[in-house]
Amino acid sequence: MSTLIRTGISLDGELLTRFDRVIRKKGYKNRSEAIRDLVRDYAVAEDVEENRTVVGTLTMVYDHHRPKLSERLIEAQHHAQGMVLAATHVHLDHHNCLEVVIMKGRSSDVRHIADQILSLRGVKHGKLVITTTGRGLK
Amino acid sequence: MSTLIRTGISLDGELLTRFDRVIRKKGYKNRSEAIRDLVRDYAVAEDVEENRTVVGTLTMVYDHHRPKLSERLIEAQHHAQGMVLAATHVHLDHHNCLEVVIMKGRSSDVRHIADQILSLRGVKHGKLVITTTGRGLK
Amino acid sequence: MSTLIRTGISLDGELLTRFDRVIRKKGYKNRSEAIRDLVRDYAVAEDVEENRTVVGTLTMVYDHHRPKLSERLIEAQHHAQGMVLAATHVHLDHHNCLEVVIMKGRSSDVRHIADQILSLRGVKHGKLVITTTGRGLK
Amino acid sequence: MSTLIRTGISLDGELLTRFDRVIRKKGYKNRSEAIRDLVRDYAVAEDVEENRTVVGTLTMVYDHHRPKLSERLIEAQHHAQGMVLAATHVHLDHHNCLEVVIMKGRSSDVRHIADQILSLRGVKHGKLVITTTGRGLK
Repeated sequence: MSTLIRTGISLDGELLTRFDRVIRKKGYKNRSEAIRDLVRDYAVAEDVEENRTVVGTLTMVYDHHRPKLSERLIEAQHHAQGMVLAATHVHLDHHNCLEVVIMKGRSSDVRHIADQILSLRGVKHGKLVITTTGRGLK
Repeated sequence: MSTLIRTGISLDGELLTRFDRVIRKKGYKNRSEAIRDLVRDYAVAEDVEENRTVVGTLTMVYDHHRPKLSERLIEAQHHAQGMVLAATHVHLDHHNCLEVVIMKGRSSDVRHIADQILSLRGVKHGKLVITTTGRGLK
Repeated sequence: MSTLIRTGISLDGELLTRFDRVIRKKGYKNRSEAIRDLVRDYAVAEDVEENRTVVGTLTMVYDHHRPKLSERLIEAQHHAQGMVLAATHVHLDHHNCLEVVIMKGRSSDVRHIADQILSLRGVKHGKLVITTTGRGLK
Repeated sequence: MSTLIRTGISLDGELLTRFDRVIRKKGYKNRSEAIRDLVRDYAVAEDVEENRTVVGTLTMVYDHHRPKLSERLIEAQHHAQGMVLAATHVHLDHHNCLEVVIMKGRSSDVRHIADQILSLRGVKHGKLVITTTGRGLK
Protein backbone atom coordinates (compact mmCIF):
# COMPACT_ATOMS: atom_id res chain seq x y z
CA MET A 1 0.00 0.00 0.00
CA SER A 2 1.23 3.45 -0.74
CA THR A 3 -0.04 6.79 0.30
CA LEU A 4 -0.28 9.81 -1.90
CA ILE A 5 1.11 12.90 -0.27
CA ARG A 6 0.31 16.40 -1.37
CA THR A 7 3.17 18.85 -1.08
CA GLY A 8 3.18 22.52 -1.95
CA ILE A 9 5.91 24.48 -3.66
CA SER A 10 6.25 28.21 -4.14
CA LEU A 11 7.43 29.38 -7.52
CA ASP A 12 7.78 32.73 -9.17
CA GLY A 13 4.90 33.38 -11.56
CA GLU A 14 7.05 34.08 -14.61
CA LEU A 15 9.15 30.97 -14.04
CA LEU A 16 6.00 28.91 -13.76
CA THR A 17 4.72 30.30 -17.07
CA ARG A 18 7.94 29.23 -18.78
CA PHE A 19 7.84 25.79 -17.18
CA ASP A 20 4.24 25.33 -18.30
CA ARG A 21 5.19 26.25 -21.86
CA VAL A 22 8.03 23.69 -22.04
CA ILE A 23 6.10 20.82 -20.48
CA ARG A 24 3.11 21.45 -22.77
CA LYS A 25 5.47 21.10 -25.75
CA LYS A 26 6.65 17.79 -24.32
CA GLY A 27 3.07 16.60 -23.96
CA TYR A 28 2.51 16.77 -20.21
CA LYS A 29 -1.11 17.19 -19.19
CA ASN A 30 -0.22 19.00 -15.99
CA ARG A 31 2.57 20.39 -13.86
CA SER A 32 2.28 17.74 -11.19
CA GLU A 33 3.04 14.91 -13.62
CA ALA A 34 6.09 16.74 -15.02
CA ILE A 35 7.51 17.40 -11.57
CA ARG A 36 6.86 13.80 -10.59
CA ASP A 37 9.06 12.73 -13.50
CA LEU A 38 11.86 15.01 -12.36
CA VAL A 39 11.62 13.60 -8.84
CA ARG A 40 11.69 10.02 -10.15
CA ASP A 41 14.84 10.81 -12.09
CA TYR A 42 16.51 11.61 -8.77
CA ALA A 43 15.42 8.24 -7.40
CA VAL A 44 16.95 6.40 -10.36
CA ALA A 45 20.18 8.38 -10.01
CA GLU A 46 20.31 7.28 -6.38
CA ASP A 47 19.84 3.63 -7.41
CA VAL A 48 22.89 3.95 -9.65
CA GLU A 49 24.93 5.75 -7.01
CA GLU A 50 24.17 3.11 -4.41
CA ASN A 51 24.80 0.30 -6.92
CA ARG A 52 21.31 -1.09 -6.42
CA THR A 53 19.48 -3.40 -8.79
CA VAL A 54 18.48 -1.57 -11.93
CA VAL A 55 17.23 -2.38 -15.39
CA GLY A 56 19.46 -1.50 -18.31
CA THR A 57 18.74 -1.55 -22.01
CA LEU A 58 21.68 -1.65 -24.36
CA THR A 59 21.01 -0.45 -27.90
CA MET A 60 23.53 -1.35 -30.58
CA VAL A 61 23.82 -1.36 -34.35
CA TYR A 62 26.09 -3.84 -36.06
CA ASP A 63 26.85 -5.49 -39.36
CA HIS A 64 25.71 -9.10 -39.13
CA HIS A 65 28.01 -10.07 -42.00
CA ARG A 66 31.00 -9.39 -39.79
CA PRO A 67 32.55 -12.83 -39.21
CA LYS A 68 32.01 -14.30 -35.74
CA LEU A 69 30.30 -11.18 -34.36
CA SER A 70 26.95 -12.90 -33.81
CA GLU A 71 28.64 -15.70 -31.88
CA ARG A 72 30.53 -13.19 -29.79
CA LEU A 73 27.38 -11.25 -28.99
CA ILE A 74 25.59 -14.39 -27.89
CA GLU A 75 28.60 -15.49 -25.88
CA ALA A 76 28.81 -12.11 -24.12
CA GLN A 77 25.14 -12.30 -23.23
CA HIS A 78 25.58 -15.80 -21.83
CA HIS A 79 28.51 -14.67 -19.75
CA ALA A 80 26.15 -12.15 -18.21
CA GLN A 81 24.91 -14.96 -15.96
CA GLY A 82 21.21 -14.57 -15.92
CA MET A 83 21.27 -10.80 -16.14
CA VAL A 84 19.89 -10.70 -19.69
CA LEU A 85 16.11 -10.76 -19.62
CA ALA A 86 15.42 -10.41 -23.34
CA ALA A 87 16.92 -9.25 -26.59
CA THR A 88 15.15 -7.81 -29.61
CA HIS A 89 16.65 -7.91 -33.04
CA VAL A 90 15.54 -5.69 -35.92
CA HIS A 91 16.83 -6.08 -39.48
CA LEU A 92 17.49 -2.51 -40.55
CA ASP A 93 18.74 -3.38 -44.04
CA HIS A 94 20.73 -6.04 -45.85
CA HIS A 95 23.78 -5.42 -43.67
CA ASN A 96 22.68 -3.64 -40.55
CA CYS A 97 21.01 -5.05 -37.49
CA LEU A 98 19.77 -3.27 -34.42
CA GLU A 99 19.77 -5.20 -31.21
CA VAL A 100 18.38 -4.14 -27.87
CA VAL A 101 19.54 -6.21 -24.91
CA ILE A 102 17.49 -5.86 -21.74
CA MET A 103 19.35 -6.61 -18.52
CA LYS A 104 18.64 -6.56 -14.82
CA GLY A 105 21.32 -6.46 -12.15
CA ARG A 106 23.57 -4.27 -10.03
CA SER A 107 24.18 -1.05 -11.87
CA SER A 108 27.96 -1.62 -12.02
CA ASP A 109 27.49 -5.11 -13.51
CA VAL A 110 25.03 -3.84 -16.09
CA ARG A 111 27.50 -1.17 -17.13
CA HIS A 112 30.35 -3.65 -17.33
CA ILE A 113 28.47 -5.98 -19.65
CA ALA A 114 27.43 -3.06 -21.84
CA ASP A 115 31.08 -1.94 -22.11
CA GLN A 116 32.19 -5.43 -23.12
CA ILE A 117 29.56 -5.70 -25.83
CA LEU A 118 30.06 -2.20 -27.22
CA SER A 119 33.79 -2.80 -27.54
CA LEU A 120 33.31 -5.79 -29.85
CA ARG A 121 34.68 -5.28 -33.35
CA GLY A 122 31.83 -4.74 -35.76
CA VAL A 123 29.50 -3.05 -33.31
CA LYS A 124 29.14 0.32 -35.00
CA HIS A 125 27.37 2.34 -32.36
CA GLY A 126 25.50 1.89 -29.15
CA LYS A 127 24.37 3.34 -25.88
CA LEU A 128 23.19 2.07 -22.52
CA VAL A 129 20.12 3.39 -20.74
CA ILE A 130 19.80 2.71 -17.02
CA THR A 131 16.34 2.79 -15.57
CA THR A 132 14.39 1.48 -12.62
CA THR A 133 13.02 -1.96 -11.86
CA GLY A 134 9.88 -0.06 -11.00
CA ARG A 135 9.85 -1.38 -7.44
CA GLY A 136 9.28 1.28 -4.88
CA LEU A 137 8.86 3.90 -7.58
CA LYS A 138 5.43 5.33 -7.97
CA MET B 1 32.16 -0.48 -52.03
CA SER B 2 34.14 1.10 -49.32
CA THR B 3 37.81 1.60 -48.91
CA LEU B 4 39.76 1.30 -45.74
CA ILE B 5 42.04 4.24 -45.16
CA ARG B 6 44.96 4.19 -42.79
CA THR B 7 45.60 7.44 -40.98
CA GLY B 8 48.33 8.22 -38.49
CA ILE B 9 48.03 10.22 -35.31
CA SER B 10 50.73 11.46 -32.99
CA LEU B 11 50.11 11.15 -29.29
CA ASP B 12 52.16 11.69 -26.19
CA GLY B 13 53.45 8.41 -24.78
CA GLU B 14 52.03 8.87 -21.30
CA LEU B 15 48.62 9.85 -22.62
CA LEU B 16 48.61 6.78 -24.81
CA THR B 17 49.39 4.57 -21.81
CA ARG B 18 46.41 5.98 -19.95
CA PHE B 19 44.15 5.58 -22.95
CA ASP B 20 45.26 1.98 -23.34
CA ARG B 21 44.46 1.30 -19.69
CA VAL B 22 40.94 2.69 -19.92
CA ILE B 23 40.02 0.95 -23.17
CA ARG B 24 41.34 -2.37 -21.89
CA LYS B 25 39.00 -2.02 -18.92
CA LYS B 26 36.14 -1.43 -21.32
CA GLY B 27 37.09 -4.54 -23.27
CA TYR B 28 38.61 -3.12 -26.45
CA LYS B 29 41.06 -5.43 -28.19
CA ASN B 30 43.02 -2.54 -29.66
CA ARG B 31 43.37 1.20 -29.88
CA SER B 32 42.17 1.41 -33.44
CA GLU B 33 38.78 -0.07 -32.60
CA ALA B 34 38.32 2.31 -29.65
CA ILE B 35 39.15 5.36 -31.75
CA ARG B 36 36.85 4.13 -34.50
CA ASP B 37 34.01 4.16 -31.96
CA LEU B 38 34.81 7.73 -30.95
CA VAL B 39 34.82 8.79 -34.58
CA ARG B 40 31.50 7.05 -35.23
CA ASP B 41 29.97 8.93 -32.33
CA TYR B 42 30.77 12.16 -34.19
CA ALA B 43 28.99 10.81 -37.25
CA VAL B 44 25.85 10.01 -35.25
CA ALA B 45 25.93 13.45 -33.63
CA GLU B 46 26.04 14.96 -37.12
CA ASP B 47 23.02 12.88 -38.18
CA VAL B 48 21.08 14.38 -35.28
CA GLU B 49 22.29 17.90 -35.96
CA GLU B 50 21.28 17.69 -39.63
CA ASN B 51 17.96 16.05 -38.71
CA ARG B 52 18.73 13.00 -40.84
CA THR B 53 17.08 9.62 -40.55
CA VAL B 54 18.15 7.89 -37.36
CA VAL B 55 17.10 4.92 -35.27
CA GLY B 56 15.82 5.62 -31.79
CA THR B 57 15.04 3.25 -28.97
CA LEU B 58 12.81 4.47 -26.22
CA THR B 59 13.06 2.60 -22.92
CA MET B 60 10.28 3.07 -20.39
CA VAL B 61 9.01 1.48 -17.21
CA TYR B 62 5.34 1.68 -16.33
CA ASP B 63 2.65 0.15 -14.18
CA HIS B 64 0.37 -1.84 -16.46
CA HIS B 65 -2.43 -1.67 -13.90
CA ARG B 66 -2.73 2.04 -14.48
CA PRO B 67 -6.11 2.45 -16.17
CA LYS B 68 -6.01 3.22 -19.90
CA LEU B 69 -2.22 3.51 -20.05
CA SER B 70 -1.77 0.49 -22.32
CA GLU B 71 -4.32 1.88 -24.76
CA ARG B 72 -2.62 5.27 -24.72
CA LEU B 73 0.79 3.71 -25.36
CA ILE B 74 -0.55 1.76 -28.32
CA GLU B 75 -2.34 4.83 -29.61
CA ALA B 76 0.81 6.95 -29.36
CA GLN B 77 2.77 4.32 -31.27
CA HIS B 78 0.11 4.23 -33.98
CA HIS B 79 0.17 7.99 -34.28
CA ALA B 80 3.86 7.61 -35.03
CA GLN B 81 2.85 6.76 -38.60
CA GLY B 82 5.05 3.92 -39.57
CA MET B 83 8.02 5.09 -37.54
CA VAL B 84 7.74 2.28 -34.98
CA LEU B 85 9.60 -0.79 -36.16
CA ALA B 86 9.14 -3.02 -33.13
CA ALA B 87 8.37 -2.98 -29.45
CA THR B 88 9.53 -5.40 -26.79
CA HIS B 89 7.69 -5.88 -23.57
CA VAL B 90 9.19 -7.44 -20.45
CA HIS B 91 7.18 -8.22 -17.32
CA LEU B 92 9.42 -7.04 -14.51
CA ASP B 93 7.06 -8.00 -11.70
CA HIS B 94 3.38 -8.13 -10.92
CA HIS B 95 2.97 -4.40 -11.50
CA ASN B 96 5.90 -3.18 -13.52
CA CYS B 97 6.51 -3.54 -17.24
CA LEU B 98 9.47 -2.48 -19.27
CA GLU B 99 8.84 -1.57 -22.85
CA VAL B 100 11.41 -0.74 -25.50
CA VAL B 101 10.02 0.96 -28.59
CA ILE B 102 12.28 0.94 -31.65
CA MET B 103 11.69 3.76 -34.10
CA LYS B 104 13.18 4.98 -37.36
CA GLY B 105 12.69 8.49 -38.71
CA ARG B 106 13.95 12.06 -38.73
CA SER B 107 15.72 12.71 -35.47
CA SER B 108 13.32 15.53 -34.51
CA ASP B 109 10.28 13.28 -35.11
CA VAL B 110 11.78 10.45 -33.10
CA ARG B 111 12.41 12.82 -30.22
CA HIS B 112 8.89 14.26 -30.42
CA ILE B 113 7.26 10.84 -30.18
CA ALA B 114 9.50 9.90 -27.28
CA ASP B 115 8.51 13.09 -25.43
CA GLN B 116 4.81 12.37 -25.96
CA ILE B 117 5.12 8.82 -24.63
CA LEU B 118 7.29 9.72 -21.64
CA SER B 119 4.84 12.40 -20.58
CA LEU B 120 1.96 9.92 -20.25
CA ARG B 121 0.64 9.50 -16.74
CA GLY B 122 1.81 6.19 -15.31
CA VAL B 123 5.10 6.03 -17.20
CA LYS B 124 7.51 6.02 -14.29
CA HIS B 125 10.82 6.50 -16.00
CA GLY B 126 12.34 6.41 -19.42
CA LYS B 127 15.05 7.54 -21.75
CA LEU B 128 15.61 7.80 -25.49
CA VAL B 129 18.75 6.58 -27.24
CA ILE B 130 19.47 7.90 -30.72
CA THR B 131 21.69 5.80 -32.88
CA THR B 132 22.49 5.24 -36.53
CA THR B 133 20.60 3.35 -39.23
CA GLY B 134 23.99 1.85 -39.94
CA ARG B 135 23.96 3.13 -43.53
CA GLY B 136 27.17 4.79 -44.51
CA LEU B 137 28.70 3.98 -41.16
CA LYS B 138 31.52 1.48 -41.14
CA MET C 1 7.43 43.01 -9.73
CA SER C 2 6.99 39.34 -9.53
CA THR C 3 4.42 37.24 -7.79
CA LEU C 4 5.08 34.09 -5.90
CA ILE C 5 2.62 31.35 -6.77
CA ARG C 6 2.00 28.33 -4.62
CA THR C 7 1.33 25.14 -6.53
CA GLY C 8 0.58 21.72 -5.11
CA ILE C 9 1.86 18.40 -6.35
CA SER C 10 0.84 14.89 -5.36
CA LEU C 11 3.59 12.37 -4.87
CA ASP C 12 3.76 8.84 -3.57
CA GLY C 13 5.01 8.75 0.01
CA GLU C 14 7.87 6.35 -0.63
CA LEU C 15 9.08 8.33 -3.63
CA LEU C 16 9.03 11.48 -1.56
CA THR C 17 11.14 9.80 1.14
CA ARG C 18 13.77 8.88 -1.44
CA PHE C 19 13.73 12.35 -2.95
CA ASP C 20 14.17 13.89 0.49
CA ARG C 21 17.16 11.63 1.15
CA VAL C 22 18.93 12.61 -2.07
CA ILE C 23 18.35 16.33 -1.77
CA ARG C 24 19.52 16.33 1.84
CA LYS C 25 22.77 14.73 0.66
CA LYS C 26 23.10 17.53 -1.88
CA GLY C 27 22.54 20.12 0.81
CA TYR C 28 19.03 21.38 0.07
CA LYS C 29 17.23 22.82 3.06
CA ASN C 30 13.83 21.86 1.71
CA ARG C 31 11.92 20.16 -1.06
CA SER C 32 10.60 23.36 -2.52
CA GLU C 33 14.05 24.73 -3.24
CA ALA C 34 15.17 21.49 -4.91
CA ILE C 35 12.12 21.40 -7.16
CA ARG C 36 12.60 25.07 -8.00
CA ASP C 37 16.09 24.19 -9.28
CA LEU C 38 14.70 21.42 -11.47
CA VAL C 39 12.12 23.79 -12.89
CA ARG C 40 14.77 26.45 -13.58
CA ASP C 41 16.79 23.88 -15.49
CA TYR C 42 13.86 23.54 -17.87
CA ALA C 43 13.82 27.30 -18.36
CA VAL C 44 17.52 27.35 -19.26
CA ALA C 45 17.04 24.43 -21.66
CA GLU C 46 14.31 26.45 -23.35
CA ASP C 47 16.63 29.46 -23.67
CA VAL C 48 19.12 27.26 -25.52
CA GLU C 49 16.46 25.67 -27.72
CA GLU C 50 15.08 29.06 -28.72
CA ASN C 51 18.59 30.44 -29.24
CA ARG C 52 18.02 33.23 -26.74
CA THR C 53 20.71 35.23 -25.00
CA VAL C 54 22.54 33.10 -22.48
CA VAL C 55 25.70 33.24 -20.42
CA GLY C 56 28.38 30.68 -21.16
CA THR C 57 31.53 29.86 -19.25
CA LEU C 58 34.23 28.01 -21.09
CA THR C 59 36.74 26.18 -18.92
CA MET C 60 39.99 25.07 -20.52
CA VAL C 61 43.38 23.80 -19.50
CA TYR C 62 46.40 24.46 -21.69
CA ASP C 63 50.16 24.55 -21.71
CA HIS C 64 51.20 28.18 -21.88
CA HIS C 65 54.61 27.18 -23.25
CA ARG C 66 52.99 26.04 -26.44
CA PRO C 67 54.22 28.56 -29.04
CA LYS C 68 51.63 31.09 -30.21
CA LEU C 69 48.80 29.57 -28.23
CA SER C 70 48.33 32.58 -25.94
CA GLU C 71 48.12 34.88 -28.96
CA ARG C 72 45.60 32.61 -30.60
CA LEU C 73 43.46 32.48 -27.48
CA ILE C 74 43.43 36.25 -27.21
CA GLU C 75 42.70 36.57 -30.90
CA ALA C 76 39.80 34.13 -30.67
CA GLN C 77 38.35 36.08 -27.75
CA HIS C 78 38.64 39.30 -29.70
CA HIS C 79 36.89 37.78 -32.68
CA ALA C 80 34.04 37.09 -30.33
CA GLN C 81 32.97 40.71 -30.84
CA GLY C 82 32.02 41.90 -27.46
CA MET C 83 30.67 38.59 -26.29
CA VAL C 84 33.50 37.99 -23.83
CA LEU C 85 32.72 39.61 -20.48
CA ALA C 86 35.72 38.43 -18.50
CA ALA C 87 38.42 35.80 -18.37
CA THR C 88 40.13 34.36 -15.33
CA HIS C 89 43.51 32.76 -15.50
CA VAL C 90 44.93 30.41 -12.88
CA HIS C 91 48.49 29.10 -12.92
CA LEU C 92 48.10 25.44 -12.07
CA ASP C 93 51.80 24.62 -12.25
CA HIS C 94 54.90 25.53 -14.20
CA HIS C 95 53.33 24.42 -17.47
CA ASN C 96 49.60 24.28 -17.03
CA CYS C 97 47.13 27.14 -17.01
CA LEU C 98 43.44 27.07 -16.44
CA GLU C 99 41.39 29.73 -18.11
CA VAL C 100 37.71 30.42 -17.70
CA VAL C 101 36.18 32.64 -20.37
CA ILE C 102 32.80 34.15 -19.53
CA MET C 103 30.64 35.04 -22.50
CA LYS C 104 27.20 36.43 -23.13
CA GLY C 105 25.33 36.06 -26.41
CA ARG C 106 23.00 33.92 -28.47
CA SER C 107 23.42 30.33 -27.40
CA SER C 108 24.54 29.22 -30.90
CA ASP C 109 27.21 31.96 -31.01
CA VAL C 110 28.49 31.08 -27.56
CA ARG C 111 28.78 27.46 -28.60
CA HIS C 112 30.57 28.35 -31.82
CA ILE C 113 33.22 30.41 -30.06
CA ALA C 114 33.74 27.64 -27.51
CA ASP C 115 34.25 25.10 -30.32
CA GLN C 116 36.80 27.33 -32.02
CA ILE C 117 38.79 27.80 -28.83
CA LEU C 118 38.68 24.16 -27.75
CA SER C 119 39.94 23.05 -31.14
CA LEU C 120 43.14 25.09 -30.83
CA ARG C 121 46.31 23.02 -30.71
CA GLY C 122 47.66 22.96 -27.16
CA VAL C 123 44.31 23.22 -25.41
CA LYS C 124 44.34 19.97 -23.49
CA HIS C 125 40.82 19.77 -22.21
CA GLY C 126 37.78 21.92 -21.78
CA LYS C 127 34.05 22.16 -21.47
CA LEU C 128 31.36 24.78 -21.95
CA VAL C 129 28.61 25.46 -19.42
CA ILE C 130 25.54 27.31 -20.62
CA THR C 131 23.53 29.12 -18.01
CA THR C 132 21.05 31.94 -17.70
CA THR C 133 21.55 35.69 -17.77
CA GLY C 134 19.35 35.60 -14.69
CA ARG C 135 16.75 37.85 -16.29
CA GLY C 136 13.25 36.58 -15.88
CA LEU C 137 14.47 33.68 -13.80
CA LYS C 138 13.49 33.67 -10.19
CA MET D 1 60.51 14.52 -20.91
CA SER D 2 57.78 13.02 -22.97
CA THR D 3 57.93 11.11 -26.16
CA LEU D 4 55.59 11.53 -29.07
CA ILE D 5 54.35 8.24 -30.40
CA ARG D 6 52.84 7.81 -33.83
CA THR D 7 50.03 5.31 -34.01
CA GLY D 8 48.05 4.28 -37.06
CA ILE D 9 44.35 3.65 -37.26
CA SER D 10 42.32 2.16 -40.09
CA LEU D 11 39.04 3.82 -40.88
CA ASP D 12 36.48 3.43 -43.58
CA GLY D 13 36.82 6.18 -46.21
CA GLU D 14 33.24 7.41 -45.99
CA LEU D 15 33.35 7.56 -42.20
CA LEU D 16 36.55 9.56 -42.39
CA THR D 17 34.92 12.04 -44.78
CA ARG D 18 32.09 12.60 -42.33
CA PHE D 19 34.48 12.97 -39.41
CA ASP D 20 36.52 15.51 -41.36
CA ARG D 21 33.39 17.51 -42.10
CA VAL D 22 32.32 17.70 -38.45
CA ILE D 23 35.74 18.58 -37.05
CA ARG D 24 36.22 21.30 -39.69
CA LYS D 25 32.96 22.84 -38.49
CA LYS D 26 34.29 22.78 -34.96
CA GLY D 27 37.49 24.48 -36.07
CA TYR D 28 40.04 21.66 -35.90
CA LYS D 29 43.01 22.12 -38.19
CA ASN D 30 43.54 18.39 -38.59
CA ARG D 31 42.28 14.95 -37.69
CA SER D 32 45.13 14.19 -35.33
CA GLU D 33 44.30 17.10 -33.04
CA ALA D 34 40.60 16.14 -32.91
CA ILE D 35 41.39 12.54 -32.03
CA ARG D 36 43.86 13.70 -29.41
CA ASP D 37 41.03 15.63 -27.73
CA LEU D 38 38.83 12.53 -27.71
CA VAL D 39 41.63 10.50 -26.15
CA ARG D 40 42.25 13.18 -23.50
CA ASP D 41 38.57 13.07 -22.58
CA TYR D 42 39.07 9.41 -21.68
CA ALA D 43 41.98 10.34 -19.45
CA VAL D 44 39.90 12.93 -17.57
CA ALA D 45 37.04 10.43 -17.17
CA GLU D 46 39.55 8.02 -15.63
CA ASP D 47 40.73 10.72 -13.19
CA VAL D 48 37.15 11.13 -12.02
CA GLU D 49 36.53 7.40 -11.79
CA GLU D 50 39.66 6.86 -9.73
CA ASN D 51 38.86 9.90 -7.55
CA ARG D 52 42.17 11.55 -8.42
CA THR D 53 42.95 15.22 -8.07
CA VAL D 54 41.09 17.26 -10.63
CA VAL D 55 40.23 20.87 -11.29
CA GLY D 56 36.60 21.88 -11.16
CA THR D 57 34.94 25.11 -12.14
CA LEU D 58 31.55 25.83 -10.73
CA THR D 59 29.45 28.35 -12.64
CA MET D 60 26.46 29.87 -10.89
CA VAL D 61 24.04 32.73 -11.33
CA TYR D 62 22.42 34.34 -8.31
CA ASP D 63 20.62 37.40 -7.11
CA HIS D 64 22.99 39.35 -4.89
CA HIS D 65 20.08 41.13 -3.25
CA ARG D 66 18.99 37.90 -1.66
CA PRO D 67 19.63 38.40 2.07
CA LYS D 68 22.63 36.55 3.48
CA LEU D 69 23.41 34.71 0.24
CA SER D 70 26.78 36.42 -0.29
CA GLU D 71 27.85 35.49 3.25
CA ARG D 72 26.77 31.92 2.73
CA LEU D 73 28.66 31.67 -0.53
CA ILE D 74 31.82 32.95 1.06
CA GLU D 75 31.34 30.66 4.04
CA ALA D 76 30.87 27.63 1.79
CA GLN D 77 34.05 28.50 -0.08
CA HIS D 78 35.94 28.81 3.17
CA HIS D 79 34.68 25.48 4.35
CA ALA D 80 36.24 24.04 1.22
CA GLN D 81 39.55 24.08 3.10
CA GLY D 82 42.02 25.35 0.61
CA MET D 83 40.35 23.76 -2.38
CA VAL D 84 39.18 27.07 -3.85
CA LEU D 85 41.89 28.57 -6.03
CA ALA D 86 40.04 31.61 -7.33
CA ALA D 87 36.61 33.04 -7.90
CA THR D 88 35.49 35.46 -10.57
CA HIS D 89 32.48 37.62 -10.19
CA VAL D 90 30.65 39.31 -13.07
CA HIS D 91 27.81 41.78 -12.59
CA LEU D 92 25.27 40.71 -15.19
CA ASP D 93 22.71 43.38 -14.34
CA HIS D 94 21.30 45.24 -11.37
CA HIS D 95 20.18 42.00 -9.69
CA ASN D 96 22.08 39.14 -11.23
CA CYS D 97 25.64 38.05 -10.61
CA LEU D 98 27.60 35.31 -12.22
CA GLU D 99 30.28 33.67 -10.16
CA VAL D 100 32.79 31.09 -11.29
CA VAL D 101 34.55 29.25 -8.47
CA ILE D 102 37.71 27.39 -9.44
CA MET D 103 38.61 24.44 -7.21
CA LYS D 104 41.27 21.78 -7.06
CA GLY D 105 40.91 18.55 -5.12
CA ARG D 106 39.71 14.96 -5.17
CA SER D 107 36.91 14.69 -7.68
CA SER D 108 34.42 13.56 -5.01
CA ASP D 109 35.26 16.54 -2.78
CA VAL D 110 34.95 18.98 -5.65
CA ARG D 111 31.54 17.57 -6.49
CA HIS D 112 30.42 17.73 -2.86
CA ILE D 113 31.29 21.41 -2.51
CA ALA D 114 29.56 22.20 -5.79
CA ASP D 115 26.39 20.44 -4.58
CA GLN D 116 26.43 22.39 -1.32
CA ILE D 117 26.77 25.72 -3.12
CA LEU D 118 24.21 25.01 -5.81
CA SER D 119 21.64 24.02 -3.19
CA LEU D 120 21.80 27.42 -1.48
CA ARG D 121 18.59 29.40 -1.65
CA GLY D 122 18.93 32.21 -4.15
CA VAL D 123 21.34 30.43 -6.49
CA LYS D 124 19.26 30.35 -9.64
CA HIS D 125 21.23 28.04 -11.84
CA GLY D 126 24.62 26.46 -12.07
CA LYS D 127 26.77 23.65 -13.34
CA LEU D 128 30.08 22.06 -12.47
CA VAL D 129 32.77 21.26 -15.04
CA ILE D 130 35.44 18.77 -14.08
CA THR D 131 38.69 18.98 -15.94
CA THR D 132 42.31 18.00 -15.58
CA THR D 133 45.11 19.56 -13.54
CA GLY D 134 47.04 19.25 -16.76
CA ARG D 135 49.69 17.05 -15.13
CA GLY D 136 50.54 14.02 -17.15
CA LEU D 137 48.20 15.12 -19.90
CA LYS D 138 49.76 16.14 -23.16
